[in-house]
Amino acid sequence: MMKQYAFGIDLGGTTAKVGLFTTSGALLEKWEVPTDTSNSGENILRNLANSIKKKAEEKDVPFDEIAGVGIGVPGPVREDRYVPTCANLGGWGDLDGSANLAALLDGLPVKTGNDANVAALGEIWMGTAKGCRSMVMVTLGTGVGGGVIVNGNVLCGARGAGGEIGHITVNPHEKAACGCGKHGCLEQYSSATGIVRCMKLLLEANSEPCVLRGREFAAKDVLDAARDGDKLALREVNNMADTLGFALAGISSTVDPEMFLLGGGVSRAGDILVDAVTAAFKKYAFSACVDTPIKIASLGNDAGIYGAVRLVVGSGD
Amino acid sequence: MMKQYAFGIDLGGTTAKVGLFTTSGALLEKWEVPTDTSNSGENILRNLANSIKKKAEEKDVPFDEIAGVGIGVPGPVREDRYVPTCANLGGWGDLDGSANLAALLDGLPVKTGNDANVAALGEIWMGTAKGCRSMVMVTLGTGVGGGVIVNGNVLCGARGAGGEIGHITVNPHEKAACGCGKHGCLEQYSSATGIVRCMKLLLEANSEPCVLRGREFAAKDVLDAARDGDKLALREVNNMADTLGFALAGISSTVDPEMFLLGGGVSRAGDILVDAVTAAFKKYAFSACVDTPIKIASLGNDAGIYGAVRLVVGSGD
Repeated sequence: MMKQYAFGIDLGGTTAKVGLFTTSGALLEKWEVPTDTSNSGENILRNLANSIKKKAEEKDVPFDEIAGVGIGVPGPVREDRYVPTCANLGGWGDLDGSANLAALLDGLPVKTGNDANVAALGEIWMGTAKGCRSMVMVTLGTGVGGGVIVNGNVLCGARGAGGEIGHITVNPHEKAACGCGKHGCLEQYSSATGIVRCMKLLLEANSEPCVLRGREFAAKDVLDAARDGDKLALREVNNMADTLGFALAGISSTVDPEMFLLGGGVSRAGDILVDAVTAAFKKYAFSACVDTPIKIASLGNDAGIYGAVRLVVGSGD
Repeated sequence: MMKQYAFGIDLGGTTAKVGLFTTSGALLEKWEVPTDTSNSGENILRNLANSIKKKAEEKDVPFDEIAGVGIGVPGPVREDRYVPTCANLGGWGDLDGSANLAALLDGLPVKTGNDANVAALGEIWMGTAKGCRSMVMVTLGTGVGGGVIVNGNVLCGARGAGGEIGHITVNPHEKAACGCGKHGCLEQYSSATGIVRCMKLLLEANSEPCVLRGREFAAKDVLDAARDGDKLALREVNNMADTLGFALAGISSTVDPEMFLLGGGVSRAGDILVDAVTAAFKKYAFSACVDTPIKIASLGNDAGIYGAVRLVVGSGD
């Protein structure tokens, strides 16, 4: 008999999102636990374990009806083991986090994954890509994250770098450095930060009128201005989409996923982004792949807790 | 009890290479069968079946000791099914080639794969990548083929385009067209044909002395001249390696394989190629992946028959 419940955790630098789910994927309740990054994060796992125990008691969920706890962490993960350390968690790392959290939870099964990979797993389980066997998700936020799903499972990679799509070099001639130390990473053009950076360069290099000139702006403002017909903003959105479409085309000639999903804050731009990225993708993609759909992810900030549960509930087929 | 024997076929446009193997991977005998491409290749499967039956009889191999027959074909393959048609086989295609060949072989298990993918499978089973769980192989021949192995299995892709590495766009500004119709594919720079094409362009654009000037040459001549210290030929080899290293770096940020293998005729250049590609790769790769080994494949023209057997013998662990 399959157990009835599972917990999913999306561990972030400020808070952890936690969800109580049925094992068939219904989200019953979600809440947040502050992430205590003091003393290299020594309290992180204990706080999470206590919160889960308290919620189980409150909801009359018996421990022997809990299939397990999945957790997505903001760092590279090989198979079920952490690779230390998570830069955003006060340097916290854990070479065997699954076992340590399991010990705090009376031996419940625990599985760990990289947060971007786990979000992709959530989307293929219960989001836009539901029913697909393979999918590549690109999360366009402050940085650019990614998750590659093959045969229903996360492709972690030999060094935990599977799906590190933001650090594909797309421009070998770039002079500015990426946060990773390289030059010309996708993230430098397609993240929210990258869009603002490139828009500023466009404004400097051109004297054309633009509603963004002379004021502070965010990535959303660039996308909104482009949608409202601002020519220079539209040029930046097309440049950004061209770079992203170029990278996705290369990925399609390597793993050939059923579909691509765009997630993260920048993806809220919707059609204007999808249409521009799709047009660029078709230009650069191998003939067999030109019609691969590119869609917006649907689970938003909950993708991580869905995917974390999927880690422990398994492929179910 | 595991059966003792298996056959592997590498179906090419002129001949099919066929091998009789033990199921533990020892090659007992190999031979060739001419590929009859007349009448859209209607005799191809029958000729192969007859050759295998004859060999089994000659070698006293009982049919109930044959685990199966694997076959690599020069066209895209989704899972175990062909996607018609194979351009190099007189337009031959077969929507269910596995079943048709099996019927001609008294119901022996038959599995089909794309030839480049199957060669990669051979190398990870019994070649340079033996013992790896993941690997990406790039075959540098007349064109550029590829095979992606994840968790010991071929990544076919949703449209049979997994591992179509030769058609990753690496230069969005290229004016010359690739055979596939796109512009700027890896194959246009890193295949034997591409090396000759780019060397000719270098000779046209530069008046420097070069041992290749004023005569016909092949890719091997360019690599030999570079090894002998010819400056212009060395520049071409470095350009070619830079482009290939750039593409492999992008692949490593997507699937993060344990190693890369270079195969095909161009790979016979050996160290001069490996060293230049490795240097370029390190420049473009994500920090976690910079030390991913890049090596020369070891099975040569036999990789295809080894991998074909692996299709039917399974992962064995």
